Amino acid sequence: MRIALLGGTGDIGEGLALRWAYDTDHEVVVGSRDPERARAKAEEYETELDSRGVEKKITGFENAMAADRADVVVLAVPPYHVADVVEEVADRLDDDVLLVSPAVGMQKGAGGFRYNPPSAGSVTELVVETAPDDVTVIGAFQNLSADRLANLDVELSLDTLVVGDDEDAKRNVAALAEGIEGLRALDAGPLANAAEVESLTPLLINLAIHNDGLHDVGVTFE
Amino acid sequence: MRIALLGGTGDIGEGLALRWAYDTDHEVVVGSRDPERARAKAEEYETELDSRGVEKKITGFENAMAADRADVVVLAVPPYHVADVVEEVADRLDDDVLLVSPAVGMQKGAGGFRYNPPSAGSVTELVVETAPDDVTVIGAFQNLSADRLANLDVELSLDTLVVGDDEDAKRNVAALAEGIEGLRALDAGPLANAAEVESLTPLLINLAIHNDGLHDVGVTFE
Repeated sequence: MRIALLGGTGDIGEGLALRWAYDTDHEVVVGSRDPERARAKAEEYETELDSRGVEKKITGFENAMAADRADVVVLAVPPYHVADVVEEVADRLDDDVLLVSPAVGMQKGAGGFRYNPPSAGSVTELVVETAPDDVTVIGAFQNLSADRLANLDVELSLDTLVVGDDEDAKRNVAALAEGIEGLRALDAGPLANAAEVESLTPLLINLAIHNDGLHDVGVTFE
Repeated sequence: MRIALLGGTGDIGEGLALRWAYDTDHEVVVGSRDPERARAKAEEYETELDSRGVEKKITGFENAMAADRADVVVLAVPPYHVADVVEEVADRLDDDVLLVSPAVGMQKGAGGFRYNPPSAGSVTELVVETAPDDVTVIGAFQNLSADRLANLDVELSLDTLVVGDDEDAKRNVAALAEGIEGLRALDAGPLANAAEVESLTPLLINLAIHNDGLHDVGVTFE
């Protein structure tokens, strides 16, 4: 599959790009507002993989170009840019593309972060509102520790949650997630459950702030 | 310490009562609106412990009576009863009592449960608003799997989150939690972070609904 990581130069984008390139045969395309930056980061990821004996072509483009002909488009951008980026790439999206939303709206306050969803109820639902009607939207990868993901020396043992209204699409995103070694995907139910999935991210940050040894904390459910 | 479990006849109350009685030297008092039911449940817990070779006195009282002279009062009641129960027991609470809130407001919808906090922002903050000013309130035990807790055959390996504005009180509740074998307490920060802690409960239920083998799911952070 061809996976376009829009905002693939950011921390969660970097982690997903490296892991998919390292662990799977998927084609990884890095998107950014700035095509120069996308290309530079793609090269950086290639160098990182090369240093581990993995030769893999990773390309970098401006977001709309990156989304073009992708099977999966991951919106790894800040929550306040999500709607703009979706509109920017909308006419490049294939009908059968999977649009994946990992972003979470948060507000920093005294002693921690609070969940701060858009008026749509969650970022995932905002993406549904913004995307063309025939595009399937799935929420996933919100609760991963980006630093751990981006460090290929770290063996993962983490869960990620998948939320959406299309069962086939959820299964596909879950399979994509589980292509990454040490990542387990769990089904969090329909889109209407997205807020509870996204709320976990500020909680993880709060635990990182207030507990020694959890600076890059992830979660497992059992 | 003397721990009063108001609503100690319910599922999370039962689990905490059994575990504290089994694993620690704390005195466990079961509270209920109905003193008969409190006594019957206390006896049932004693019988359960006795069958495991643990002889321990567990008493049962009407809630206000149970709260009387307790060091720790756990409000293991449904979220819509929390304010009433706090008012009911308010004049029995010692100044230095620890009032612990494990309840979570939720609403059932299609395909899952959604977080539905009271206007105070969270149940924990509602308890703060309702309780006498000199009483310290801590949120904890929201995200435990009640069935696993109540089944003493099950070896726990779970995290629970502690949230509140008083650091000493949080440490005390964390120690109380960790008196239960296999339970680790993590600091989720100040009271203002309580909503993110409580939001985890509907998420756990949604995961239980949508994933095989997770019918009584708990969480660990690492």
